[in-house]
Amino acid sequence: MKNIVHRYGHKRVTLVEGGVTRHRSIFNGLKAFMGDHTLGAGLQTPEVVIIHDAVRPFVNEETLLQVTNAARQYGAAGAVRPLVSTVIAPSSDGCLDHSLERAKHRASEMPQAFLFDVIYKAYLQCSDYDLDFGTECLHLALAYSKTRARLLEGPPDLWKVTYKRDLYTAEAIIKDRISKHLCIITNIKEEAVQIGFRLHEHLKSHVKNVKAISSSMCKTVQDVQNIHQGQCYNYVCINVKDCDLEESRKLMDLLQAAHVGAYYPSVVVSVHLAFPDQCGSDIQKQRKIRDLAKEAQKSDVFLYGLMINFSQEESQLEEGARQAAAIIAALITDRNPALIGQVMVV
Amino acid sequence: MKNIVHRYGHKRVTLVEGGVTRHRSIFNGLKAFMGDHTLGAGLQTPEVVIIHDAVRPFVNEETLLQVTNAARQYGAAGAVRPLVSTVIAPSSDGCLDHSLERAKHRASEMPQAFLFDVIYKAYLQCSDYDLDFGTECLHLALAYSKTRARLLEGPPDLWKVTYKRDLYTAEAIIKDRISKHLCIITNIKEEAVQIGFRLHEHLKSHVKNVKAISSSMCKTVQDVQNIHQGQCYNYVCINVKDCDLEESRKLMDLLQAAHVGAYYPSVVVSVHLAFPDQCGSDIQKQRKIRDLAKEAQKSDVFLYGLMINFSQEESQLEEGARQAAAIIAALITDRNPALIGQVMVV
Repeated sequence: MKNIVHRYGHKRVTLVEGGVTRHRSIFNGLKAFMGDHTLGAGLQTPEVVIIHDAVRPFVNEETLLQVTNAARQYGAAGAVRPLVSTVIAPSSDGCLDHSLERAKHRASEMPQAFLFDVIYKAYLQCSDYDLDFGTECLHLALAYSKTRARLLEGPPDLWKVTYKRDLYTAEAIIKDRISKHLCIITNIKEEAVQIGFRLHEHLKSHVKNVKAISSSMCKTVQDVQNIHQGQCYNYVCINVKDCDLEESRKLMDLLQAAHVGAYYPSVVVSVHLAFPDQCGSDIQKQRKIRDLAKEAQKSDVFLYGLMINFSQEESQLEEGARQAAAIIAALITDRNPALIGQVMVV
Repeated sequence: MKNIVHRYGHKRVTLVEGGVTRHRSIFNGLKAFMGDHTLGAGLQTPEVVIIHDAVRPFVNEETLLQVTNAARQYGAAGAVRPLVSTVIAPSSDGCLDHSLERAKHRASEMPQAFLFDVIYKAYLQCSDYDLDFGTECLHLALAYSKTRARLLEGPPDLWKVTYKRDLYTAEAIIKDRISKHLCIITNIKEEAVQIGFRLHEHLKSHVKNVKAISSSMCKTVQDVQNIHQGQCYNYVCINVKDCDLEESRKLMDLLQAAHVGAYYPSVVVSVHLAFPDQCGSDIQKQRKIRDLAKEAQKSDVFLYGLMINFSQEESQLEEGARQAAAIIAALITDRNPALIGQVMVV
């Protein structure tokens, strides 16, 4: 945890040692606000504390604000979700004792927020049984501080990453989120611009926000940081010659200088136009792209190549751009490290 | 539903029209066993019926057997899972009324099994309120047939596909399952066998069951159907010349004749050895592979190309095989339709 806090440059995080159970860990966290100077932080007692689970990584800011505001008003608040399955109570012999009406119950999720005094007082008074076997902070607030928590319907993404299958989902959600923005950077030569326009059109049906700029508008670190408000992890770079990596190389340098890729790996698809009469063998081109890709990977940029056979014929050019867009979208969505440096062809 | 039953050749399925609620649909299903001849099936009343949800597609045979046997003994049985979140009861004003002890409750999942008479009697007697708002068959068996269902701990894969995120998971689970078996089919020429051996070794660290056979052992439809007991959806085919698709073509014909790909798309990675002094341009090779891939896609086979630069040098050959195995594993796992017909190079 210390490494993560350091790596991402968080300045306002105080780490507190966990306990043997959930409630004991939370209690340790609360104590840190009561001037425990062994933590060395000199933390002030807050009005409201939010309690959250690390296994619910997709909480959004709105939900945090809602529970905080409700805690100010009601003393305690928590996010809930409808039950997906009916809940039943087994008897001690493993048979059904009774079942609960699904519509009258909710799954208690996180985050929860409390007036500090409400939850701290509850933890001070609760029993060892509560601390060792309890699972619900809202229950402690009710039982020991006589505070009835306000329940707020949370979004489905609050679910708890619990099973192996939840890791698939978490990965898919993250990949989905970082694949929403794409920027096409194109050399200003005629053919590159022609392809750039077409790719722009076709990529719109795959990617939510597509922006196209000429390479003359992407020359400084500031220029790169401004693309999609710094939320862009996907670039298509159109080089004008098939044996040339000029634009891709410039972009790579800028991405590295701008520290893009600090949170997630970025994808760069290096597009090259192939003309029937052109320089260099395919093997040479592939080597060049592979070498640049190796270099890029060091700064967490995944580079893939894409060769478009340039045609003067309108319908062929259009079909090429359509296929190219589908391949670019697939490369961005999968972010497959095994295919780094490979050159696709349309 | 009729189309699905027809497409996969199911012979013992009788379809019954659904009702407006879950319980009304199940009741319709049960009535079909009471000689309702409008269904035209002449179904006999069974000893035990199993009730299941289509949104829990990953049920296994063992669970079905367990609930069936328990139903014979106890009259009713259902699969349950531990609760992931604490369940709470809200008051009418949206605040916490009380919370339930998590360890003392279970999520009721499916499948459930019943002696036919137990569940049919329950449905005959239950109220319209039950039929319209109820969610739990075990409850009906208890309330109207005085039968306490046996609860059996089910596997985690019984979860209910409910949210968009569950589709990611379902897709990942299916891809995982059909990526467990791989067969390498190699031409018997010296160089092909050399590469085949090395790929076999390296692929073992990516894929659970890897089998390697020479193409002389894969000549009939029966041969293909015997590979991994007919559960193989992944093939690596090693052609001896880089401009030649002989082995891949033969395999394609066999796969087509054997109707492999009827349930899931199969993947064929067509491996080609590139020698420094060899025939044909890269563009020609790519075209050939792309044409074969287009043909293959018609029978739901995804074909990808992989060119291995053949080296006499031991360490280079080994490194090439290592990279090739990583690429093959990635292609199999992703099964990306956008990359069909592309040629990877190591």
